[in-house]
Amino acid sequence: MGIALSEALSAWAGLVGRDHVTSNSEALESASTATFATAQRVLAVVRPGSRAEVQGCVRIANRWGIPLYPVSSGRNWGYGSRVPVRDGVLLDLGRLNRIVDFDEELAYVTVEPGVTQRQLHEFLRQQGSGLWMDATGASPDCSIVGNALERGFGHTPMADHFGHACGLEVVLPTGDVVETGFGRFPGSKVSALHRSGVGPSLDGLFAQSNFGIVTRMSVWLMPAPERFEAFFFLSRREDGLGPVIDALRPLRLDGTLRSVMHIGNDYKVLAGAGQFPWDETRGETPLGREAMSGIRRRMGIGCWNGSGGLYGTRAQVREAKRRLRRVLRGKVDRLQFVDDTRLAMLRRFSGLARWVTGWDVTRTLAVLEPVYHLLKGVPTEAPLASTYWRKRTPVPADPDPDRDGCGLLWCSPVVPNTGRHLTEVAHLAESILPDHGFEPQMSISLATERSAICVITISYDRHAPGEDGRALQCYRRLAETLIARGYPPYRLNVAAMDLVAGDETYEALVLALRDALDPRGLLSPGRYEPAPRARRGPSRADLGVA
Amino acid sequence: MGIALSEALSAWAGLVGRDHVTSNSEALESASTATFATAQRVLAVVRPGSRAEVQGCVRIANRWGIPLYPVSSGRNWGYGSRVPVRDGVLLDLGRLNRIVDFDEELAYVTVEPGVTQRQLHEFLRQQGSGLWMDATGASPDCSIVGNALERGFGHTPMADHFGHACGLEVVLPTGDVVETGFGRFPGSKVSALHRSGVGPSLDGLFAQSNFGIVTRMSVWLMPAPERFEAFFFLSRREDGLGPVIDALRPLRLDGTLRSVMHIGNDYKVLAGAGQFPWDETRGETPLGREAMSGIRRRMGIGCWNGSGGLYGTRAQVREAKRRLRRVLRGKVDRLQFVDDTRLAMLRRFSGLARWVTGWDVTRTLAVLEPVYHLLKGVPTEAPLASTYWRKRTPVPADPDPDRDGCGLLWCSPVVPNTGRHLTEVAHLAESILPDHGFEPQMSISLATERSAICVITISYDRHAPGEDGRALQCYRRLAETLIARGYPPYRLNVAAMDLVAGDETYEALVLALRDALDPRGLLSPGRYEPAPRARRGPSRADLGVA
Repeated sequence: MGIALSEALSAWAGLVGRDHVTSNSEALESASTATFATAQRVLAVVRPGSRAEVQGCVRIANRWGIPLYPVSSGRNWGYGSRVPVRDGVLLDLGRLNRIVDFDEELAYVTVEPGVTQRQLHEFLRQQGSGLWMDATGASPDCSIVGNALERGFGHTPMADHFGHACGLEVVLPTGDVVETGFGRFPGSKVSALHRSGVGPSLDGLFAQSNFGIVTRMSVWLMPAPERFEAFFFLSRREDGLGPVIDALRPLRLDGTLRSVMHIGNDYKVLAGAGQFPWDETRGETPLGREAMSGIRRRMGIGCWNGSGGLYGTRAQVREAKRRLRRVLRGKVDRLQFVDDTRLAMLRRFSGLARWVTGWDVTRTLAVLEPVYHLLKGVPTEAPLASTYWRKRTPVPADPDPDRDGCGLLWCSPVVPNTGRHLTEVAHLAESILPDHGFEPQMSISLATERSAICVITISYDRHAPGEDGRALQCYRRLAETLIARGYPPYRLNVAAMDLVAGDETYEALVLALRDALDPRGLLSPGRYEPAPRARRGPSRADLGVA
Repeated sequence: MGIALSEALSAWAGLVGRDHVTSNSEALESASTATFATAQRVLAVVRPGSRAEVQGCVRIANRWGIPLYPVSSGRNWGYGSRVPVRDGVLLDLGRLNRIVDFDEELAYVTVEPGVTQRQLHEFLRQQGSGLWMDATGASPDCSIVGNALERGFGHTPMADHFGHACGLEVVLPTGDVVETGFGRFPGSKVSALHRSGVGPSLDGLFAQSNFGIVTRMSVWLMPAPERFEAFFFLSRREDGLGPVIDALRPLRLDGTLRSVMHIGNDYKVLAGAGQFPWDETRGETPLGREAMSGIRRRMGIGCWNGSGGLYGTRAQVREAKRRLRRVLRGKVDRLQFVDDTRLAMLRRFSGLARWVTGWDVTRTLAVLEPVYHLLKGVPTEAPLASTYWRKRTPVPADPDPDRDGCGLLWCSPVVPNTGRHLTEVAHLAESILPDHGFEPQMSISLATERSAICVITISYDRHAPGEDGRALQCYRRLAETLIARGYPPYRLNVAAMDLVAGDETYEALVLALRDALDPRGLLSPGRYEPAPRARRGPSRADLGVA
């Protein structure tokens, strides 16, 4: 270990306490492990307990020239987990886990980066709050702030997490602190309410960037609606996606559908319901379309399976149902509405239903219930299990995809919200993934009125020889093809940050901003940073790392 | 005229053509005139005709060290019109007036800064489009891009103009061009659809700043709803505002009210209906509360007068009406719904109505119709007339507040969307404005679910001796008081840009960004730029200006 690093470690230990600085090799090995192959090394883990300690940690990093990579909960699964883009010290913000403000009347909460989805959900319940949060499917232990800064999304009307956040408190790469929006005005009463502030709006600079460390953020909540119903539909036609999209777009544009709907293909639903059918394929991968077709029939799922929520008064939900039924008529093979009562009934009579109709409700419920919860903003463990899709051992009680060698890469292009474009992207995924030995799991989120985010999953077993390499090759080919066709990604993994680049002027501009904020390039070097002329931070040799 | 400026003028004339460079003193005098006292001088007006010419103009400015102040339509009334924050050359973007892209299916239009509200509205009509735009009340000749960049707002669900725009093409202070969002990816199909792009989002940097010149922007439109109804309500109680706000907030938060509602006080409505009642007050100003009370009764207006739109299917609008009626019951003295049929009827039977009920429908219509149009996104001339409130001559056929010495200053704090806070702000305005000799005209816009923008109007006659000075004093006292009470402004005028400052770290950060983008500080010096340590651009002496 080099002198600079060891001096910095002593300084950090002096600041945050020895217990909160880790450099034992097992812990570092674990922190350097993601759901795909990475070579970057975590040199140490430092866990500050307050904003002031974060500032101190940053100043120490500057003094000794050590790159820092802040993570909130480190559950950036499918995009790199806790692994930094370049070698560096992890700044684990998990101890900053206070809910510092809450307002029932104006429907917001102010949280630190260590606050998890589970924690906020429990907090609201304890307060007897009439407000709902939004949840992403990743895991209940996922950080609210971390997910928002990666522009993650969920299922409710508040699904766009960064779009419903404001008033960021940011530790800059110098160690100074700024507040975005109106927070800089002492005594401002609207810092958590009104996003833009006056003068240039800086919030956007701190999403998907290495311009600062967000240590506090206000997140908007929604009043629990008088009435909530989920809807589920399926189309059994392989070419069923386009007509459904074109039918739904007008309802999204006119505000009838106020939340982010999701449509999963058959592979996606199957992976959500259990592991790879090894017996059925006699151990062969990938699962081909013909086998899939049999499974679809048996499971009663469609080629395309949609879910969404209706939120409002009784009359508003009734009207939304009427319109949804009308636009989907003839375009889907099944459309069902589910509310709390109906779900309870299904649960109670699942045995009976199977006996009467042959329909295995239990299995349907296993897929349906977590989605139903997410549509109400309730975090769930369930989607995590799907990362074990290609494992030959069962999902453990305490799933941890990093630890267990679950291979997962998410490629997530943004696509115009039209049947034609989304069908083209689906076809690309269906041709590229099997080519590399993977099933084309895919879910389409109608993220905005005009655009969809298509999350294409490369799911594999990191312990299967050769798959780590094939998965990254597949990702690269898929992402580059999509970009070339006009569908750039909404988010990147730590192995693909070079894809952020566009043209030279953009690169020069982002690097000029970066230089202005972080002349030494020590904060998350490489993260969403154009690569060609990027300042790469000190090399291993500079740090004295063997 | 200094050598640098005259060299630059020749270069500009060579680039854009002599006809598009103005330096005659009458034109410059006019361009240096706003609706309040300003001392800054416009040194010349240059009118490029294309983005390439804008780049060339910027490069010439850099070469000769001349500050440039870009304006789109220059109708920044109440905030400075075309007058720059510091002496400089106006870069008038009015000739960049192309509508460069339009998509009916995905509901957006891409426009250059010279495109006016009127032009876009007529374009949509000519296309036979089923889409509605949003319009601000300023004037049909107001620029779409210019208003969005100042974070202006209107009345429909698309009222937040900058919030419904994306894909900015920006000429940087160096003359280089960048596109925000996904525009940097060649062939991207989502540049006009999905705002954030991948990596840090830069859009916010170019609103209310001097970081670049926006030469193109995509603006989202809304499908014309199946059913539209406007609603109007009034409360005759001076303390009627609070209960109304608290009644409406839940409907804004739960999505029943999807657009920006406006509530004007009695003075605001009176100024919208005609000029100051000079006879009634025997020439005295300001108009006192007692006289106002009589006028209110006579005109049938309330102390607080609200308007808003309901957009949706028949059933959605019916349900919104039901809920609106219920929450406002007992809190307002009148609640009326108006649609196209009803408006036509009112127009036809206005004489009869007066005869039967004594209600002067014509006068009501004069106030109501422009608002009704704005609620449907139709630009209107009407609000412009209200800037002649204190003039003793009638409103001319071609109103031009700058030319005619109409005094107008808008002070526009952001306030939590609660009765208590908005009442406090109203009381502050009601005490401060009359103190300086002005009526407290006020309109409250429920800009977001959680925050309101209160636009307080200082309306006066610039030709009345002493009023120019008193108006600026009044503005300053009002704005500073509001900031101190926690209600910072959403927008600033060219005489008050120093109020953008907050704390030192914010100032240092914004100035560092500014230095990175514009080391010589030649683009709109002083515009939304923290003053204390601000780079002020060359002085008059540097430019050789007498």
